[in-house]
Amino acid sequence: MNTDQYTIGIDFGTLSGRAVVVRVADGAEAGSAVHEYRNAVIDRALPTSGKPLPPDWALQDPEDYRDVLRHAVPAALADAGVDPAQVIGIATDFTACTVLPTLADGTPLCQLPELAERPHAWPKLWKHHSAQPQADRINALAHQRGEPWIGRYGGKISAEWQFAKALQVLEEDPEVYSRTERWIEAADWIVWQLCGAETRNACTAGYKGIYQDGRYPDPAYLAALHPDFADFAATRLEHPILPLGARAGGLTAEAAGWTGLPAGIAVAVGNVDAHVTPPAAGAVAPGQLLAVMGTSTCHVMNGTDLVEVPGICGVVDGGITAGAYGYEAGQSGVGDIFAWFVDNGVPPAVHDEAARLGLSVHDLLTRQATEQPVGGHGLVALDWHSGNRSVLVDHHLSGLIVGLTLATRPDEIYRALIEATAFGTRTIVETFERAGLPVTEFVVAGGLKRNKLIMQIYADVLRRPVSVASSDQAPALGSAIHAAVAAGAYPDVVTAAGVMGAVETAVYRPDPDAAAGYDRLYAEYQLLHDHFGTGADKAMHRLRDIRNAALARSDREVSA
Amino acid sequence: MNTDQYTIGIDFGTLSGRAVVVRVADGAEAGSAVHEYRNAVIDRALPTSGKPLPPDWALQDPEDYRDVLRHAVPAALADAGVDPAQVIGIATDFTACTVLPTLADGTPLCQLPELAERPHAWPKLWKHHSAQPQADRINALAHQRGEPWIGRYGGKISAEWQFAKALQVLEEDPEVYSRTERWIEAADWIVWQLCGAETRNACTAGYKGIYQDGRYPDPAYLAALHPDFADFAATRLEHPILPLGARAGGLTAEAAGWTGLPAGIAVAVGNVDAHVTPPAAGAVAPGQLLAVMGTSTCHVMNGTDLVEVPGICGVVDGGITAGAYGYEAGQSGVGDIFAWFVDNGVPPAVHDEAARLGLSVHDLLTRQATEQPVGGHGLVALDWHSGNRSVLVDHHLSGLIVGLTLATRPDEIYRALIEATAFGTRTIVETFERAGLPVTEFVVAGGLKRNKLIMQIYADVLRRPVSVASSDQAPALGSAIHAAVAAGAYPDVVTAAGVMGAVETAVYRPDPDAAAGYDRLYAEYQLLHDHFGTGADKAMHRLRDIRNAALARSDREVSA
Repeated sequence: MNTDQYTIGIDFGTLSGRAVVVRVADGAEAGSAVHEYRNAVIDRALPTSGKPLPPDWALQDPEDYRDVLRHAVPAALADAGVDPAQVIGIATDFTACTVLPTLADGTPLCQLPELAERPHAWPKLWKHHSAQPQADRINALAHQRGEPWIGRYGGKISAEWQFAKALQVLEEDPEVYSRTERWIEAADWIVWQLCGAETRNACTAGYKGIYQDGRYPDPAYLAALHPDFADFAATRLEHPILPLGARAGGLTAEAAGWTGLPAGIAVAVGNVDAHVTPPAAGAVAPGQLLAVMGTSTCHVMNGTDLVEVPGICGVVDGGITAGAYGYEAGQSGVGDIFAWFVDNGVPPAVHDEAARLGLSVHDLLTRQATEQPVGGHGLVALDWHSGNRSVLVDHHLSGLIVGLTLATRPDEIYRALIEATAFGTRTIVETFERAGLPVTEFVVAGGLKRNKLIMQIYADVLRRPVSVASSDQAPALGSAIHAAVAAGAYPDVVTAAGVMGAVETAVYRPDPDAAAGYDRLYAEYQLLHDHFGTGADKAMHRLRDIRNAALARSDREVSA
Repeated sequence: MNTDQYTIGIDFGTLSGRAVVVRVADGAEAGSAVHEYRNAVIDRALPTSGKPLPPDWALQDPEDYRDVLRHAVPAALADAGVDPAQVIGIATDFTACTVLPTLADGTPLCQLPELAERPHAWPKLWKHHSAQPQADRINALAHQRGEPWIGRYGGKISAEWQFAKALQVLEEDPEVYSRTERWIEAADWIVWQLCGAETRNACTAGYKGIYQDGRYPDPAYLAALHPDFADFAATRLEHPILPLGARAGGLTAEAAGWTGLPAGIAVAVGNVDAHVTPPAAGAVAPGQLLAVMGTSTCHVMNGTDLVEVPGICGVVDGGITAGAYGYEAGQSGVGDIFAWFVDNGVPPAVHDEAARLGLSVHDLLTRQATEQPVGGHGLVALDWHSGNRSVLVDHHLSGLIVGLTLATRPDEIYRALIEATAFGTRTIVETFERAGLPVTEFVVAGGLKRNKLIMQIYADVLRRPVSVASSDQAPALGSAIHAAVAAGAYPDVVTAAGVMGAVETAVYRPDPDAAAGYDRLYAEYQLLHDHFGTGADKAMHRLRDIRNAALARSDREVSA
């Protein structure tokens, strides 16, 4: 093995893209760079005209993705001090389902001057949540017709995914829909920009595109959703599906110009941020559940058997690594919720104290929260501020907190929010185990792994040790591993993972007293979860309806 | 009538005492002054030794009450430019049930050196909420034995009142209990300080002391609560009960020295802040419901008939004015909740913006909230951060908010909290009307009447006009009216009220569209109210138990 060979992994996140330069021989990270998206999350108004967007919308600008190639890759190479000639491959991973409409040549519709002012022409970010009515109909019809694939998705297709979002375009802006020649995951679109050819990867096709057992949903089913939707899959999605780690093509001269890399080097097929990560964290064996914890949390786990698990995101053959069934579950809001609280719910005294101590507000709240005895705040929260992905699959749920008193402090609410996300994870782990998929190890990657309080709370709530991925940029490292496989340096992803990935095992161990305390709080969480989440009380849906009607009315009055 | 005659009214609040100098002829307020209590609310640690207090405790320092006489009265006289010789009487009103143990001569036990370190020797403020277990037993036993008085209190004696608080002393510190020669409302204790003689007033005896139809609860009943409690009423409470507006005695030389007033002028019997106010607001006719809205809200209303209303604080013959049945209900937290939120839940950006605009944070949040369409925040809160007084009478309930998203703003939460208190008031109004007591006018006094958004929300939520007391210091004015009656300037309180009180009628009128929007939100509030409040889900009680156990354990660990 030539120790001078490197690959590039690029992790496209919600707010930025990160490139890392990795040594193929041992996974050592030689350098990295981040590029922040200029337009970030477009959820209030279009950046072109300032046209306001309705609630629950979230778009992105595809030029921000290309800018990551132009800026982060050269900067990472410079940071690493690596000669571009030593780089043998490049791979990417992306948020999902982030999806966009394009022409047949890959041009995003929002980059056509005549469509730039049409919100539906823009890429829909994963957390675009306004297609819930379409998702509801997709699910109801699938169950009514007994579609064979619905059980693979826990019984519910998410409003975040390809079909709900596409149906929303068709119904709300038929002209944009009719101009849509390809409906493509950003994960695949960015690979198209790198290698000049459309490809589709097994991961997003399976999890987000309802591609199961070699086919998309039946045209008759799609026609029953909407007559003009019958040929959606055949005309906008259909394309050969490539396994993860496969070579999509060679780097084009144009992309070589952007990145400073040699033209012709291997470009791997697209992948998803969560699913690309298990190889980086040594978590590709069946039963190793990897939680990628950041803005949101994705849970991914390989299994040897095909099982239908209620309320999970999906199970896909080869969805994580070829030859295994990849299971995915998720929590729509985790770090996002903590950030919302710090930005919106923490008074000046705490900000001032943090500044005085030279700490971030997160770090000060964490320090204060660490002092609290388990249950001492008397609070339980539901972590649904961004909806619930698993196991309720309902993005019109919302956040709740109960137990507030006039003595409740900000650090107590902060801890209750952390605990709520841990209870959400426990709900998912228990759902997997009830379905017959034992979770043998709980591994964490992603930005939140650095917070020791969060990790200890997860260990205590889950009553099991927490292992931690060694890399601080595990998704990008995972992409670099896939690039090495695409370049032929390793025969397959599992082999490459064994060399290039790394994990610290059982760093956090459950404390029995704390775990007993959390059992009592988790019991309360479960009661609230079932009361508000599974239909006993549709209060959250009604409040969402009231809100949307009020804002729409108010919007009309302002326009009038 | 001599236009040069004045009386002094003193309103003892939760954090300060306010004296006002009022012209007897027409109720004109000539001057006023406020004295802030040095030790305010003692809820974390005793001011003497720093000894920490358990959760849900709230004490006060009786010397702070005497200091109001020493400082606020002379300052008010100076502000008014009134010669003390023109003052013919003085009257007071107090928070209730704020109650203290004293020797037979009125000396507070906490002022005995040997008892100063014993928390139970201190006055218990109205919002001391840790006697809930005692209240629960008081109520269960009363229903079991069919005590005739329990229906007069809506079916529940509050943990805030005299019997629950006294039983807590007996059970938790029997020595302090045995040293207690008088168990007396601060309302009566301050009159004792002024006129040198113990008196008991009809209002606190009735509402807070379970004095009905001329007697206290039966010794056999008290013995069944605790053997040593049998003689509690006979030995610690029993005393002639005087009607409101009666003369308690003449100002002592010592009190004349404190206040600068002439010795011997009339001192009226004690009264409660809420109950003293209807005469100041022209709201003494049956069906006029007066809401005194400040830290908490008290609702008081005269009625011609004796009716038992479930969940109200009580009905007392002559409890507001002699000759009518006085009804009282209340909300434990109102302005307190808004203040808690502003202090604990509003980020620096809002504070900075308020400073830039020269507004208080309350005023800026109010301005921002005024822009929101009804229901546009998608939130519903339960206003139980300080427990629920009416109609659930349960101080181990807690606050809740549902509908939170990552887009929820501080001004939206602020408005949801305001609305929650309006929904709480609507619950009380509807309870009165269902019991056969029509509410013919809704009148507001107290500090919150200045906030136009709050007043409009109440008008819209209640679907009825809101009238507003003219005085900004209506309780103190009400006391001054009672002083005028005690001094013989008027034959009775109703007559004095007709001359000295004033109200602006129907200042706020309901908007039909807003009212329709609030009906939908109120329906959600009612569902949450019943689910968490009436026993379908005891989550709030369990969380309180978990909290208290955790804090007690943590306290032991720190001590150990």
